[in-house]
Amino acid sequence: ADTVMRQQARARLDQLAIPHWALGQLMDTAEELAAMTRSMAPSVKRKAIAVMAGDHGIVAAGVSRFPQAVTVEMVRNFLNGKASINALARQVGASLTVVDAGVAGDLTELYHHDALWNRKVAAGTADLSRGPAMSRAQAIQCLEVGIEVANHLADTTDLYATGDMGIGNTSPSSAIIACLCGCDIATVTGRGTGLDDAALNNKIAVLDRALALNRPDAADGLDVLSKVGGFEIGAIAGLILGAAAQRKPVVIDGIISTAGALIAASLVPASRDYMIAGHCSVEPGHRIALNHLGKAPLLDLRLRLGEGTGAALAMHLVEAAVAVLTEIATFEEAAVSQA
Amino acid sequence: ADTVMRQQARARLDQLAIPHWALGQLMDTAEELAAMTRSMAPSVKRKAIAVMAGDHGIVAAGVSRFPQAVTVEMVRNFLNGKASINALARQVGASLTVVDAGVAGDLTELYHHDALWNRKVAAGTADLSRGPAMSRAQAIQCLEVGIEVANHLADTTDLYATGDMGIGNTSPSSAIIACLCGCDIATVTGRGTGLDDAALNNKIAVLDRALALNRPDAADGLDVLSKVGGFEIGAIAGLILGAAAQRKPVVIDGIISTAGALIAASLVPASRDYMIAGHCSVEPGHRIALNHLGKAPLLDLRLRLGEGTGAALAMHLVEAAVAVLTEIATFEEAAVSQA
Repeated sequence: ADTVMRQQARARLDQLAIPHWALGQLMDTAEELAAMTRSMAPSVKRKAIAVMAGDHGIVAAGVSRFPQAVTVEMVRNFLNGKASINALARQVGASLTVVDAGVAGDLTELYHHDALWNRKVAAGTADLSRGPAMSRAQAIQCLEVGIEVANHLADTTDLYATGDMGIGNTSPSSAIIACLCGCDIATVTGRGTGLDDAALNNKIAVLDRALALNRPDAADGLDVLSKVGGFEIGAIAGLILGAAAQRKPVVIDGIISTAGALIAASLVPASRDYMIAGHCSVEPGHRIALNHLGKAPLLDLRLRLGEGTGAALAMHLVEAAVAVLTEIATFEEAAVSQA
Repeated sequence: ADTVMRQQARARLDQLAIPHWALGQLMDTAEELAAMTRSMAPSVKRKAIAVMAGDHGIVAAGVSRFPQAVTVEMVRNFLNGKASINALARQVGASLTVVDAGVAGDLTELYHHDALWNRKVAAGTADLSRGPAMSRAQAIQCLEVGIEVANHLADTTDLYATGDMGIGNTSPSSAIIACLCGCDIATVTGRGTGLDDAALNNKIAVLDRALALNRPDAADGLDVLSKVGGFEIGAIAGLILGAAAQRKPVVIDGIISTAGALIAASLVPASRDYMIAGHCSVEPGHRIALNHLGKAPLLDLRLRLGEGTGAALAMHLVEAAVAVLTEIATFEEAAVSQA
């Protein structure tokens, strides 16, 4: 991001006719947006949410309460406009693109929808508690899917957001976070869609085994993605890299999207400059991952859904941050006395 | 609020095609809105923010960094559309009404603006460190100003928000909170617009003296308002009472608005049911007051401005909560498998 424009934005924000920096995190965000977009009037009006979908072989180890069929059912729900992300995308005026990056079930009957991309890398990952989730070539492939989506949307998008759908995907996300943040798996593993204590302990044990078996190299984001990741997580990482390459902001959703953001930051550290943390969920690994990325979340509403819902909600705050930078008079402009 | 409709809303939210209650506080808010409005499709589209302005005799005791003239200057800034609340009200599509409930300076040249109401109770309160801030009759009068504004806006408003302007007004707010929440004044007093340590200690000492001198009766909200309150704080309390009487939701802004909410709840406990906490500011008394009201704030962005800015930002989340209740399919409607 651009240091000169950051300083110029800070200089203006410092002079607004309010007690110094009294709009807190909104002003931090305004400064970041100026640096990202190299503009004192950042464009964020045209908003696009990409929901990456994929399945996970590790569900065979009993890490999720919901059956794998739900991934297909929810993709259908997205295309029918009746899911949570549809409601919240409409609310903030964002477009929605759904990408089959690796759903296990057959989506052939749905590919005629313009909003659904068929970029299935494989019919779900392999069970990472028994070996690598995917090959290195597949890891590159799902990253490229995300980059392709970002590039396709570029002409009509000022502000991106990430989303995910995939039964079982808090498991690979926790594994990625443990590896890339250097944490014990137990501290970053949560109840996902609602595991009880026994199932949570099983999930932790399964992931502990998976990390011991695969030994992902924390210095190599591609190795981490291929050993313990997921196709939709790779596609999310790719979307972030694509947005960053365009110097456009991208709002990160929940723990799955943030695992993708860790992969992106591992591959291209500068991509971090274009990330905005939409929210912090109740999954314990999420806050740890956000801290590792140096990102303060805009919202903390006890969300634990994914789909891009937290990112969609935060898009309004990103627009508000631009309004702070562009629509508020300084002490001098407003002829207001200073302290 | 209505128990039957609350239960009906909860029954629907329990069945949405997401992990149970995975949209957290948004779902809590949706349930509240259904109970407030007695509707499964609460109206919140038409939004109105009322900014109550007043001055404070206690500024003579050196409790604020900014000169009192800023209250008038900021009212002018509001009417010119260049202040923070203008930017954020536009952002969320809310109307703005500014009320002179007791500004010390002369606003005659501005009263021709339709958006400004002249309801000046007096030219600022008396110095509450030397005696009561206002008479009991004036306390009733400023409450009535807020009720009048709420009633006037009723035909065109589904969702209200409170805002304040008044140099020095964190001082009466802290005094009200200390009294009505039964806290030590030091624990609920903050730096306001940016006091240094010495000035903060002075502010605490002044307020401690004011409470000892006036001995406001915590069982009598009118006594608290008259002894240690402010005209704009009374008008905010009145606005809340007016909204509650209409069974419409009102989003509470920062510490000044929340002090007003405490007065309202003290006078009419049921008014609490119609309050939504927009945010939690950095003022230490704010969270204490919100806890006392039993309200979880929607946002926590290190704001400390007032004007209604945090409430304006939260209005988008209130609308999103309605979308959660009305636009998301249940498991059955969406044919999604359950856990």
